[in-house]
Amino acid sequence: MATDLETLKHAPAELGLNELLAQRWSPRSYADKLVSDSDLKTILTAAGWAASSMNEQPWRFLVGRRGHDTYDKIFDTLMPGNQAWVSTVPLLIATIARKTFTPRGDEEAKPNGWAMHDVGAASANMCLQAISLGIHTHGMAGFNREQLRANFNIPEGYEVCAVWAMGYLGSPEVLPEHYKAMETSARTRKPLSEYVFTHWEEAAKL
Amino acid sequence: MATDLETLKHAPAELGLNELLAQRWSPRSYADKLVSDSDLKTILTAAGWAASSMNEQPWRFLVGRRGHDTYDKIFDTLMPGNQAWVSTVPLLIATIARKTFTPRGDEEAKPNGWAMHDVGAASANMCLQAISLGIHTHGMAGFNREQLRANFNIPEGYEVCAVWAMGYLGSPEVLPEHYKAMETSARTRKPLSEYVFTHWEEAAKL
Repeated sequence: MATDLETLKHAPAELGLNELLAQRWSPRSYADKLVSDSDLKTILTAAGWAASSMNEQPWRFLVGRRGHDTYDKIFDTLMPGNQAWVSTVPLLIATIARKTFTPRGDEEAKPNGWAMHDVGAASANMCLQAISLGIHTHGMAGFNREQLRANFNIPEGYEVCAVWAMGYLGSPEVLPEHYKAMETSARTRKPLSEYVFTHWEEAAKL
Repeated sequence: MATDLETLKHAPAELGLNELLAQRWSPRSYADKLVSDSDLKTILTAAGWAASSMNEQPWRFLVGRRGHDTYDKIFDTLMPGNQAWVSTVPLLIATIARKTFTPRGDEEAKPNGWAMHDVGAASANMCLQAISLGIHTHGMAGFNREQLRANFNIPEGYEVCAVWAMGYLGSPEVLPEHYKAMETSARTRKPLSEYVFTHWEEAAKL
C-alpha cells in the first residue's frame, strides 16, 4: 500500500523534477516506527545548510519524540483536526524564527525581514533530507501560535513558524474517513502561467 | 577552477547530507552562458511543488533575462555592492508572496501568516532543482523592496521577498577583490546545539 501511495503522490514524471523533489509529499498516516537519532541529526543538519540572509541562520527547531514532554507541549497546540491524525506521529518539530539579526559588538539588533522566509527554506531542506532517508514530513499551520509560544516561554524577539510531523509512512487505513480520501487523492499544483511572470501578472513565455 | 571551488563549497562529506543539498551554495561569479527555457521551466516547476499552507502556493516569480526590461527593473533595485557582481549574471528572479489566502466564493480574503515562509520553501526547491541541472543560484536581501514594488506595480496585498541570481558558475577571477576572497573561502554553519532544542535554548541531545 505504501508503495502504491508513493507512486500516486510522486510529482508527474513528465515534469522532469529531480527525484528528491518529486518524492516529497505530506502524508497524514505514519507507521509505528522511530526515526533514529542519527537520521534526525542528519536531517536537521541539512536544514542548517540552507541559504539565509547574511548567513544569519535565524531558524530554531524544537524537537519532541512521542512520550516526551516536548512532544506533548507541541501536540497540545494543534487544532483538533490535526490532532486526529497526528496521534500516530512519532516526532513533532516546531520551527521558530529569530526576528532580528545577531548584533555585532555594541550595535543594536536590526530587524531581519527574511527570518520567516529563511526558516521556510531551512524547512524545505529538512523535508528533502528526510525523504532521501525514506522519512516523511507534514507541515502544519493549524495550531495555536500564541499557545506554543507560552508552552515554551519563547521570548518576543522570536516568531513561531510551523509545526512539522515526521516519521515513516504508514497505512491510510488507520486515518479518519475524511483524511483517508485526501491521503489517497492525487496532488495538484497551479500551472506555471499563474505564478511565473515577466511583468506583474503577465505570464512568462516558457 | 570551477571544480576546485565546488569541492571547497560542498558541505563537509562527514555530515552525510544528500548530494543535492550538499552541493548548493551561493556563488557570485557566473559564466557567460544562458540557462535554457527548458531548464528554467523545470526549475520553476520544482519551486511550485513545494509544500504550502492550505496548498495556497502564495509564490510569484518575476523572471528577467539579461538584456530584457524585466532584468533591468530588478537590477535597478539592487544595492551597489550586489550590482558589482551581479552584472555578469544571465538571469535575475524576484520572488513575491501573496499575503492572503485566495478566498473561496464570497468570503473575505484571510491573512496568510505563512506566505513568506512558503515562498522561502519554494525558493529552496528552486535552488535545488537548479543545482541538479548544474545551475547555481544566489539569493539577495540587499535590494530596495519598495523600489521593486514600484518598478513592477505590485499591489499592496503582495510582499516582495527576495532577488535571486541564477546561472552557470564562472571564474572568481572576474570578481572585485573583496568578493574574490569570499568566493574562495570555506562555508560555515552553526552547530546543531545552537538551533535544535527540546526546551527553549536547551540543546537537544542528538
